[in-house]
Amino acid sequence: MLSGRTARRRVLRISLPYDGRADGTAERADFLAGEEPLGIRVDGTALTMTMRTPGDDIELAAGFLVSEAVVRGPADIAEIKICDGTSCGHADHDGMGNIADVILAPGVTVGPGARRNFLTTSACGICGKASIADICVLPHAPLAADPARFTPEMLATLPGRLRDAQRVFSRTGGLHAAGLFTSDGKLIAIREDVGRHNAVDKVVGWALLDGRLPLAGCVLLVSGRASFELVQKAVLAGIPLLAAVSAPSSLAVDLAEEAGLTLVGFLRGPSMNVYIGTHRLSA
Amino acid sequence: MLSGRTARRRVLRISLPYDGRADGTAERADFLAGEEPLGIRVDGTALTMTMRTPGDDIELAAGFLVSEAVVRGPADIAEIKICDGTSCGHADHDGMGNIADVILAPGVTVGPGARRNFLTTSACGICGKASIADICVLPHAPLAADPARFTPEMLATLPGRLRDAQRVFSRTGGLHAAGLFTSDGKLIAIREDVGRHNAVDKVVGWALLDGRLPLAGCVLLVSGRASFELVQKAVLAGIPLLAAVSAPSSLAVDLAEEAGLTLVGFLRGPSMNVYIGTHRLSA
Repeated sequence: MLSGRTARRRVLRISLPYDGRADGTAERADFLAGEEPLGIRVDGTALTMTMRTPGDDIELAAGFLVSEAVVRGPADIAEIKICDGTSCGHADHDGMGNIADVILAPGVTVGPGARRNFLTTSACGICGKASIADICVLPHAPLAADPARFTPEMLATLPGRLRDAQRVFSRTGGLHAAGLFTSDGKLIAIREDVGRHNAVDKVVGWALLDGRLPLAGCVLLVSGRASFELVQKAVLAGIPLLAAVSAPSSLAVDLAEEAGLTLVGFLRGPSMNVYIGTHRLSA
Repeated sequence: MLSGRTARRRVLRISLPYDGRADGTAERADFLAGEEPLGIRVDGTALTMTMRTPGDDIELAAGFLVSEAVVRGPADIAEIKICDGTSCGHADHDGMGNIADVILAPGVTVGPGARRNFLTTSACGICGKASIADICVLPHAPLAADPARFTPEMLATLPGRLRDAQRVFSRTGGLHAAGLFTSDGKLIAIREDVGRHNAVDKVVGWALLDGRLPLAGCVLLVSGRASFELVQKAVLAGIPLLAAVSAPSSLAVDLAEEAGLTLVGFLRGPSMNVYIGTHRLSA
């Protein structure tokens, strides 16, 4: 049987002598981030499988469907069920299940999914060249009209607030975090996962189920890098500013520009880089 | 048209006043890690799409096929071709292509792929519970017989060697690295990517095409965390020790134990955690 949100393991800690300190080797117990597969099934059909940290699985499934442009509001989902391990009749399948069963509302369907199927649909079939429009599922510049403004002083406080809220992180050191904040820096939601995309899906799924989409005027802060995929998730959730502790990729900046998102990287306390959308930064 | 290995972008650098230092805001040019989709087509059928940093694409495709247990040696691959953008006849599709076309040797086929299809095959169809054996494609304990031994002193030198070799990293700050070392700490190969799994696939693909698999006696060091997926890639390449700069997940440790791999985490110069396989650490 696989593990849960965190798991306890024996570890041999080795410290070599350096800088005049003595060496030391000791066996001790350590907490590790849990990692298990979650299958997402929509209307009875397997849609995807992700390796995630167990917990907030309904939100993860809901957020994934927002990120894939399948649902836009809570009314688009009739039901999400996680098997509790009692309904399958196998005596050893106790505890948390690893399949999220989603039933969409009547009339809502999983589209062809331009990004997933780009090889066979949108991009050039011979060389695979694709434009941003080919590989993502976004409407054009959906965020351009969001009038929200943010101060560098407020943004500078966010990494510390995210770390303070990462109680699990302090035990495992192995989890990515995504935090959602208001424009004046109040933390609204935080979720963690071994996968940074899962942490964002969990936050977005929470917002969807709570009736808060689109997240106009909000900031999403992620603990790692900002990839194309994370920018797409932020845009589909209606978030006008995505901030990352580390670097963005080139494609993340290109997509942010096209979608009208403000993208901040290397947000480390008092210093930060604004890659696109500087008009939202009020001094 | 999308970008290449690195891309130059304008960035607004904001530094707030702190610790008595003056503030400063300046626009400057910055290099970002390139990110583009690569489609991998095998015998004419689209197998997968990954967001990767362009470069070493043939190695990436080859390594991916090792990680999926499709190929085991260079003779299993008849040909890998990356479209150079001239064969599709579209005048604007210049430069590097984004599809790797793989032709397998006669008799080599893409199997059902236990991990990819676990929802419909191996795991419990109702609750999704899976054992490690269900979600991976590994033979049992394939590395148990590898007699290689490694000293903590040698391991302590590896993060510095990896950083020194990351020339691209110093320009973008946004790339994961995977480095392959001999048991006495000599760097054999290093590859970088926005995705850590791609960096490992590139290293493994290089080794495959160079006729070096299995990589008995070697160490693989990754710049980030150690997930289930990375352990599986190391095991399938025959690498007896995987070291990570950050934390492993619980499932990574479980799989390493089952496969006979030594797993080291938080390798940061003179200190490190050995999560499993301590018998390979000779003091």
